[in-house]
Amino acid sequence: MDIDMDKAALDTTALRELAQQLRVDAVRAAAAAGSGHPTSSMSAADLIAVLVARHLRYDFARPDDPRGDHLIFSKGHASPLLYAAYKAAGAIGDDELLGFRRDGSRLEGHPTPRLPWVDVATGSLGQGLPIGAGVATAGARFDRLPYRVWVLCGDSELAEGSMWEAFEYAGYERLGNLVAIVDVNRLGQRGPTRHGWSLGAYARRIAAFGWEVMEIDGHDIAAIDAAYLRATADPGRPVAILARTRKGRGVRAVEDAEGKHGKPLPDAAAAVAELGGERDLRIRVRPPTGDGPDPDRFRRAGPPRLPAYEPGSSLATRTAFGAALAALGSARRDVIVLDGEVSDSTRAGMFEKEHPDRFVECYIAEQQMIAAAVGLAVRGWTPYAVTFAAFLSRAYDFIRMASISGIDLRLAGSHAGVSIGADGPSQMGLEDIAALRAIHGSTVLYPCDGNSAARLTAAMADRPGVSYLRTTRDDTPVLYPPGEPFEIGGSKTLRHSPDDQVAIVAAGITVHEALTAADKLASQGIAARVIDAYSIKPIDVDTLRDAALDTGRIITVEDHRAEGGLGDAVLSAVAAGPGPVHADRLAVRSMPASGTRDQQLHHAAIDAEAIVTAARRLFVA
Amino acid sequence: MDIDMDKAALDTTALRELAQQLRVDAVRAAAAAGSGHPTSSMSAADLIAVLVARHLRYDFARPDDPRGDHLIFSKGHASPLLYAAYKAAGAIGDDELLGFRRDGSRLEGHPTPRLPWVDVATGSLGQGLPIGAGVATAGARFDRLPYRVWVLCGDSELAEGSMWEAFEYAGYERLGNLVAIVDVNRLGQRGPTRHGWSLGAYARRIAAFGWEVMEIDGHDIAAIDAAYLRATADPGRPVAILARTRKGRGVRAVEDAEGKHGKPLPDAAAAVAELGGERDLRIRVRPPTGDGPDPDRFRRAGPPRLPAYEPGSSLATRTAFGAALAALGSARRDVIVLDGEVSDSTRAGMFEKEHPDRFVECYIAEQQMIAAAVGLAVRGWTPYAVTFAAFLSRAYDFIRMASISGIDLRLAGSHAGVSIGADGPSQMGLEDIAALRAIHGSTVLYPCDGNSAARLTAAMADRPGVSYLRTTRDDTPVLYPPGEPFEIGGSKTLRHSPDDQVAIVAAGITVHEALTAADKLASQGIAARVIDAYSIKPIDVDTLRDAALDTGRIITVEDHRAEGGLGDAVLSAVAAGPGPVHADRLAVRSMPASGTRDQQLHHAAIDAEAIVTAARRLFVA
Repeated sequence: MDIDMDKAALDTTALRELAQQLRVDAVRAAAAAGSGHPTSSMSAADLIAVLVARHLRYDFARPDDPRGDHLIFSKGHASPLLYAAYKAAGAIGDDELLGFRRDGSRLEGHPTPRLPWVDVATGSLGQGLPIGAGVATAGARFDRLPYRVWVLCGDSELAEGSMWEAFEYAGYERLGNLVAIVDVNRLGQRGPTRHGWSLGAYARRIAAFGWEVMEIDGHDIAAIDAAYLRATADPGRPVAILARTRKGRGVRAVEDAEGKHGKPLPDAAAAVAELGGERDLRIRVRPPTGDGPDPDRFRRAGPPRLPAYEPGSSLATRTAFGAALAALGSARRDVIVLDGEVSDSTRAGMFEKEHPDRFVECYIAEQQMIAAAVGLAVRGWTPYAVTFAAFLSRAYDFIRMASISGIDLRLAGSHAGVSIGADGPSQMGLEDIAALRAIHGSTVLYPCDGNSAARLTAAMADRPGVSYLRTTRDDTPVLYPPGEPFEIGGSKTLRHSPDDQVAIVAAGITVHEALTAADKLASQGIAARVIDAYSIKPIDVDTLRDAALDTGRIITVEDHRAEGGLGDAVLSAVAAGPGPVHADRLAVRSMPASGTRDQQLHHAAIDAEAIVTAARRLFVA
Repeated sequence: MDIDMDKAALDTTALRELAQQLRVDAVRAAAAAGSGHPTSSMSAADLIAVLVARHLRYDFARPDDPRGDHLIFSKGHASPLLYAAYKAAGAIGDDELLGFRRDGSRLEGHPTPRLPWVDVATGSLGQGLPIGAGVATAGARFDRLPYRVWVLCGDSELAEGSMWEAFEYAGYERLGNLVAIVDVNRLGQRGPTRHGWSLGAYARRIAAFGWEVMEIDGHDIAAIDAAYLRATADPGRPVAILARTRKGRGVRAVEDAEGKHGKPLPDAAAAVAELGGERDLRIRVRPPTGDGPDPDRFRRAGPPRLPAYEPGSSLATRTAFGAALAALGSARRDVIVLDGEVSDSTRAGMFEKEHPDRFVECYIAEQQMIAAAVGLAVRGWTPYAVTFAAFLSRAYDFIRMASISGIDLRLAGSHAGVSIGADGPSQMGLEDIAALRAIHGSTVLYPCDGNSAARLTAAMADRPGVSYLRTTRDDTPVLYPPGEPFEIGGSKTLRHSPDDQVAIVAAGITVHEALTAADKLASQGIAARVIDAYSIKPIDVDTLRDAALDTGRIITVEDHRAEGGLGDAVLSAVAAGPGPVHADRLAVRSMPASGTRDQQLHHAAIDAEAIVTAARRLFVA
């Protein structure tokens, strides 16, 4: 039987049957896998049946159609329901459904974009709605298309602060194209949720953030349909549909019972029978209609006219970053900058000044900032999310998930290291390199002067995966001429002779300390090579191995913790190399307080004096 | 002039003078430092003057008095105001005040517990209130003392999701001993906040979370006093006082002006004159009274009776962790366990079952979970915060700040690595070792069997700083006899001969793969040493250097990303050593999907087969 969307009348019997089919298929998929979340799927089956059959506008044959709606399962563990809906829509077959969670299957335990209909990986709760708000921002403000973003949320995940960042952000931005469907089944993973079936508790909270809120029985087909109709009647603000449901709905052995989370049903065959047996309903999902987007929206007008700084002059790399970002915005209409209410300090404000229409202020909500960037990237835009290096730690889980989603995401973190001076440790990014290096497929860049910062800012624009640029608060001398190329994965050797006895590998602010140290060492008869490892990941393995082979002695020096940063990256590169190396790693090993930049570098023992001492020590060893 | 608290009548003139003194001293401190946030201090000066002079119960001479109130500046950048209040209370002198932000001063740019009156470091916005909720939990539930927790919040930081985790947590827990004072000065760092002076926008939101909310003029001494009186009248739920203020209040050149954030005043002398000049008012802060806490509250009844597992049996290290935690709870009344609504999976539920009175359910709000743990630690309790390893990433900034605060905090993360199997990458902790190693002064432990997991769980209880235990979802064989000691910083050498040609360093699940690999290599005539590096930080440098020296070949193998984990830790240890080493590092270098545990280990090339291949490759090299 086909369920045809073009019928005006609501066929509740057919939709009820469809919902039962989704339940049956969720039960079957989890049974075949021996794991998964059928009960969390069953609670939301009616909600998804009515949505997909009557309200979603989507062409499963053309997932890249820019006009299509977006369906995000923020409660990613309900993946069996999502996959059952894909089957009902004809996107996958029953065989693939029953391969759920198997090695090699696209149908993973939690949805990922290995499936062409999945925008982003979910499964870390509290992320789907903030990201959906980002996609909705793209629709309302940048794509200027009438597609809608439907997000299925769990009730448990409403405890996550990131959800409230999203409620605040979307409410304030009046994203009328965003619909949160909350499956209030009252049972979390370990037992009852805080508010159980008190829809009013959620309604009060969400309404206070400027959303239109409805409370419905999530198993009442007509009520669900009416709510979706109201949500699509252009309400001018985001809509939350709070649906009271029963976990495991339809199977007495598990319905509304504790201890049934994340497990296949005890007797799948009996459950399927109780649900009325297998069905083979097929939905004709209504495709999107209307005009496509402006074909010129991602236009590029040649290479960016990057700022040029004279060697010998001084400026902060954050300033060069801001200037380059503004230039990039002039050359490319796809570039969008997101701020966490620090754009004056990070210099992202230089972009805002020239391109206010492509600047997204997220206020001090770093999770929402990253999520909005991810949502924009889903729609093909080129986002840069910018805050202090230290505060990116606030959104680390979102960055992790962006990498699982295969999102091209550009991050910039200012005020790196102890060299910020008097503000103290709370404002110092000291763990950011370690955290970002560990992200799969990431790129970590740390320029030491204005021209390299500008070049690398531009290079990130076409870099796949998560890329991160670390900038410095204080002025540093310009070392490289304008136009000097800086390849990702490269390095610059600033001092070099055939007789080098030690190699000093630095990045960012410590490059300047390394140069001073090399001069001092030279005056003491020690020839030191100096390498600017501006690309920390990928790192320039060949140059480092040559340095190790040539000198036998390597010192790394970084304005970052000793673990997971430049030192670890360099040792990894040379460890698998041929020769023996004596190494020392200078890094921040104490807890800084306030002080000037130079005092900070000195106390942390990452200044020129400390490098000289370390170099001399290697000759004694 | 002294301001004496015991007077019943409200002397608004004296309090207004005191507030002006606080402004003057904030201006002077920032002027002397050449940096800092005087304008953000001036907006809240009346709020703090009335609080400290009339409502705070605190003995500055005995900051450890358990009966005293707690005052937390969630808007830590207003540190000049805090320090000015300390001076007015007689805790510091004018000379120290004017050393603000200087090298060696306790008066850092943002407050830290280097000052004995500061509970926790702030400066990363959105943390003071969640931590205050943790301290209030200690007061209401564990210390059972009537002290009050006063938290000065900014309006900008209300955009942080963590604040709403705190509003939800504290409202649900009905923490009537918690007062949030929100300094609504309408200007953030870069310009106006989202809601400006719309106190109603904040009031609606906060009230929806079950708080008592008041809206006042934050420069009206009588209104402030009345609000505090009402807040201290045991309202049975937390209180938020929304105070409309003007940033830079009292100095025309900066009052309510944009572009004045985080800068000394342009003309400090003129500003001081405009504020009425320097004053030397001294407050007699009212000390706490009443009974102290139960002296027996931290009682220890000898060493814990840890679970004992027979070598050859099998169980998951998460289960041994849960059992050990329960045993520890029986031996020590100071141990409290916090959960992020996954206690069934992490096995923290085993503690809850035996000690429900010392179990704190934080629901899926990892930032609040860590903040509550920090707040409990402030009060001398011994908290363990437990969730999936992957989801600790959600609270990374809170962990970072806990280390700046010098808090002893115990973290456990379950479901580490690809070995969890079918759930897929969103649930896999793969960056946790890198992130936690980079935390200053941290300890990172990763046991491979039940008995080591139990021992290390107990060892964390008295470990200073942030310590982290990583556990595995699946069963692994018990390798060590019950009673075997496991020192932090140690390792176990499981295979050893004088003729070892290669050393395999593993931890957790890969230890078992390493043993299988060593057996295979032995059958091929290659003697392999196997080291269980259960203590990843600090790592057993001596044992690793000996292994490098003895064999010249090291393979590390870890169920974690290649950056910042065991491999980096081992290379750091041996790099500064004497001999040449050929090294290979096996780690998760691809993006996992679903599959069984063994398929996952195989695809990631961290199983026994991959180790054998890597070992043989080192002999060719």
